[in-house]
Amino acid sequence: MKNKVTVVGSGNWGSVAAKLIASNTVRLSSFDDEVRMWVFEEKLPSGEKLTDVINRTNENVKYLPGIKLGKNVVADPDVESAVKGANMLVFVSPHQFMEGICKKLVGKIGKDTEGISLVKGMEVKKEGPCMISTLISKTLGINCSVLMGANIANEIALEKFSEATVGYSKNKEAAEKWVQLFGTPYFIVSAVQDVEGVEMCGTLKNIVAIAAGFVDGMEMGNNTKAAIMRIGLKEMIKFSKMLFPSVKDSTFFESCGVADLITTCLGGRNRKVADAYAKNQGKRSFDQLEAELLNGQKLQGVLTAKEVYEVLSDRGWVEQFPLFSTVHAISIGRLPPSAIVELGDSRSANKQVGNSTL
Amino acid sequence: MKNKVTVVGSGNWGSVAAKLIASNTVRLSSFDDEVRMWVFEEKLPSGEKLTDVINRTNENVKYLPGIKLGKNVVADPDVESAVKGANMLVFVSPHQFMEGICKKLVGKIGKDTEGISLVKGMEVKKEGPCMISTLISKTLGINCSVLMGANIANEIALEKFSEATVGYSKNKEAAEKWVQLFGTPYFIVSAVQDVEGVEMCGTLKNIVAIAAGFVDGMEMGNNTKAAIMRIGLKEMIKFSKMLFPSVKDSTFFESCGVADLITTCLGGRNRKVADAYAKNQGKRSFDQLEAELLNGQKLQGVLTAKEVYEVLSDRGWVEQFPLFSTVHAISIGRLPPSAIVELGDSRSANKQVGNSTL
Repeated sequence: MKNKVTVVGSGNWGSVAAKLIASNTVRLSSFDDEVRMWVFEEKLPSGEKLTDVINRTNENVKYLPGIKLGKNVVADPDVESAVKGANMLVFVSPHQFMEGICKKLVGKIGKDTEGISLVKGMEVKKEGPCMISTLISKTLGINCSVLMGANIANEIALEKFSEATVGYSKNKEAAEKWVQLFGTPYFIVSAVQDVEGVEMCGTLKNIVAIAAGFVDGMEMGNNTKAAIMRIGLKEMIKFSKMLFPSVKDSTFFESCGVADLITTCLGGRNRKVADAYAKNQGKRSFDQLEAELLNGQKLQGVLTAKEVYEVLSDRGWVEQFPLFSTVHAISIGRLPPSAIVELGDSRSANKQVGNSTL
Repeated sequence: MKNKVTVVGSGNWGSVAAKLIASNTVRLSSFDDEVRMWVFEEKLPSGEKLTDVINRTNENVKYLPGIKLGKNVVADPDVESAVKGANMLVFVSPHQFMEGICKKLVGKIGKDTEGISLVKGMEVKKEGPCMISTLISKTLGINCSVLMGANIANEIALEKFSEATVGYSKNKEAAEKWVQLFGTPYFIVSAVQDVEGVEMCGTLKNIVAIAAGFVDGMEMGNNTKAAIMRIGLKEMIKFSKMLFPSVKDSTFFESCGVADLITTCLGGRNRKVADAYAKNQGKRSFDQLEAELLNGQKLQGVLTAKEVYEVLSDRGWVEQFPLFSTVHAISIGRLPPSAIVELGDSRSANKQVGNSTL
């Protein structure tokens, strides 16, 4: 039986994912050509429904205008009907919708179905992170992998060279199918057996991007910025491993690790707003700057820093994570932006990172 | 007996090193206050000798103008006299002078002397790399560590926050003394037992910077640049480990690894010239662009890529290093700059990097 794929989500990244997948299902005989895409129905200014326009033009005119998705992509406004018959589900909705979507699908999918989550920005709660892959896998009773990486959707849509990492827990065969399904000559995918490590990267990098933005705003130069990014990377590794001892150092050399961190610290909205915050010497709040600069998009790094700080504080780990803690303290106005380059007092804590965890 | 330090070299980085060291020798009781600095004597336009001006003003007016080195730094134009009585030698001359300097010092230094090399840009010969630390240690019969990192000399001179890595082979106590001697609240130094790994980083990063410059010149975006930097980092690790099985993955998470790579790929002359090369679509040679853009400074990445390619080709490793090989092929005009993002054909080679070496 051929594998049948449904993409659950149709925003900017979801549409690019559908395009990548659709180019492969027509090429590979082990996959059914048709790729269903669940679309949250919207009325366009023209009066037409978004699904109708996608199915007529093969273009998501609202979230990925100008890019052909492939004739074999079929938009469906009903999530239950969209997943019917599919044995491979790609989840790519904003994370606040994931719980509702999963609940709707309970009992509607086959038990041998494989899932993969492209959702970034899981929550980090006191009792540990709320992994999206775990939410999916527990609610639906299916195996769930993740795909993360240095993936600016619009650059991949234009077929610029890029990479991504599949993180899986046990099912290596499933991981290999996902690699086949997503990979193209310009989008290189590799798989590592470390679902938690891969998923943590996608969230924690945003804290480091805030730190990098402060350095930019204070015009401290590339040397300092690189040092801050490196310290951030080491805290990402250490924090992930303290929460999940199975997390591997090597995962952070993959696209989801160092490459995504670099992309996010060079461009990205977290860096941008933090840069403005430092330039204004903290006199204008993150909320104000977010509203002004991001055109409705949301800032994740500040919230993640707060969530991570609660975990650190709850477990007595604050001293061991000077960068994460300092980003939080700056973002709530307790320290000035310049504190980000005054980790000198925390030298012993930093050295511990260097010697003990790696 | 107090430790006595001599800095062998007085260029831009050598002067900054003397400043860092001099601030610590006056502070720490285990070190003699005086820091001797060997200066290759020059006549300044004013007619004065460089050493005289340094000793009068405490400033290296030629190579680090505007920065006070400390009153306890004493410039000496005679290398033999400069090292007399010192038991800690800091080598920081351009690498082409190192052999001559070492030969001059044979028999002139105590046998318990410890050396450290700050010299970047060792040569990679067919029979393996010509490590500067090995050259020093063999010629002089002393133990030699290295110090590398994301270190733009002028930024450290201005006391901007930065980090560095000491790589040592056996003598941990000596490494701890070097950490004490160089470290300040704005210059955080840590030590790892991996002299080869640390020293290889400083050379191989320049090949990756050339690749990053090509991506910039073609305006491929941050996503692609991050991917290329990551692939480059993995080839750096793999190549180092194939030459020296003792090299550790963790070294590449230190300042000498990922941080120096980021700095070099963001700024730096290798990136700059490669950017111009790609913008001119390879129609103007590296030699021409170097002469125009670098104001007499030399480009290391192209030469290193050639040397590394000879090793790869000699040992049958070319296929396993698609990025290193492609940088060489582009820089000699055998491939167009766009080839840097066409590593798709080498996917299997890349995946092997991902799975086998980490």
